Amino acid sequence: MNFTSEQRLDDGTLEREFTLGEIPGILWTPASASVSEPVPLILLGHPPLGLHKMYPRLVARARRCAADGFAAATIELPGSGDRPRWAAAEQARADLRQAMAAGEPVGDEIIDALILPLVERAVPEWRAALDSLLARPEIGGPVGYSGGIISIGIRLVVVEPRIVAAGLFAGSFVPRAMFEEARRVTVPLHVLLQWDDEGNDRQASLDLFDAFGSQEKTLHANMGGHTGVPQFAGEDAAGFFARHLR
Amino acid sequence: MNFTSEQRLDDGTLEREFTLGEIPGILWTPASASVSEPVPLILLGHPPLGLHKMYPRLVARARRCAADGFAAATIELPGSGDRPRWAAAEQARADLRQAMAAGEPVGDEIIDALILPLVERAVPEWRAALDSLLARPEIGGPVGYSGGIISIGIRLVVVEPRIVAAGLFAGSFVPRAMFEEARRVTVPLHVLLQWDDEGNDRQASLDLFDAFGSQEKTLHANMGGHTGVPQFAGEDAAGFFARHLR
Repeated sequence: MNFTSEQRLDDGTLEREFTLGEIPGILWTPASASVSEPVPLILLGHPPLGLHKMYPRLVARARRCAADGFAAATIELPGSGDRPRWAAAEQARADLRQAMAAGEPVGDEIIDALILPLVERAVPEWRAALDSLLARPEIGGPVGYSGGIISIGIRLVVVEPRIVAAGLFAGSFVPRAMFEEARRVTVPLHVLLQWDDEGNDRQASLDLFDAFGSQEKTLHANMGGHTGVPQFAGEDAAGFFARHLR
Repeated sequence: MNFTSEQRLDDGTLEREFTLGEIPGILWTPASASVSEPVPLILLGHPPLGLHKMYPRLVARARRCAADGFAAATIELPGSGDRPRWAAAEQARADLRQAMAAGEPVGDEIIDALILPLVERAVPEWRAALDSLLARPEIGGPVGYSGGIISIGIRLVVVEPRIVAAGLFAGSFVPRAMFEEARRVTVPLHVLLQWDDEGNDRQASLDLFDAFGSQEKTLHANMGGHTGVPQFAGEDAAGFFARHLR
């Protein structure tokens, strides 16, 4: 993990860009974090639009984490930002755009082609990032995972025992195979659903929530479309992480 | 409104029992409430089990209201506690018990007979209580309504413009007629649902949530049965009222 830039935000949060091999990422630590007082960590998931485009929303979430005494970190997804594209993913995105433009239902084969390879590639990268982040003396754990493509979150909490709580956003296409995988999730879950999400199947999201194996799981459904998550939903999610990471 | 008892709880909350005509009730006011600093009010709904039996849960909710700077008040439901029974309600309860004991689905006619007369009788009583409560100099509004039989809450917020926000518990039988009425609800709503509520139809609860006409409505679904609402759900509900009553 090589730091490539460092700045102190106006709230005291230290923001550092890094690279992990070829993968760019950002780490935010609260002013209080130190070797003698290492802090918990929240991994910030995001949609595959590139870190640069996502930065305003990511830094807002990171500031909230820091205010609660948590570090936050994120890495670029495979095929996003400046990272190399791969042909199959580009084809899946094109097929998706075409189906949606034609007003056709998005078939399982498109969803599988779009999501499954991304999960396969991204999850080992997030685990490697976690290795490096937890090796830092100012970061002590426990670790939470928040947001982004829900299938990445599901796979990550199934395979990664260091993640003890997850806030998931039921707002992306979910391959059928992930419903089986959801049953193997056991960590406490806080699931956000936008009731009128244009690009999302509400019943599928409710079925997915039902499928999760976790004994503690909460669904927060709010009005509005995909990007209309109300600010108070962020407050409730922060309360969830405060309960489980402190 | 005649006060019949008064005691100061250990957290400073003033608890006063009262009667409103033949109807017993309880008013809790935070230590801070005064003529010069009147406080908002939350009406505490409850199931028809009698105020005496419900007291432990009611006082816990009232203490939380007081800690947030809100008064809280409740009244006995018609046909509960020491209030006179009426034959049709007793028959409806007996029919319900019989259907449930036989493992039969609870038919619309039983639900209608159980709930609709209770709504008809209770709602004017809560409105009369509200008149008396808001006439007190230490209570200033705005007013919220929280919990209890959801059909009473729906009717109350439809007909009572002084209630500006409602926390509802989707945990009781809902007559079909109330789904239409739900469309006329416009105040911000915070709806709790217990995902595995034995006596509740989950899909009906989701349909009811969908039916509400409010622009701001949030569904919080948690694991567990009817009485298993987790403590953190109360925290989130308190946050909802703090946003809308302060």
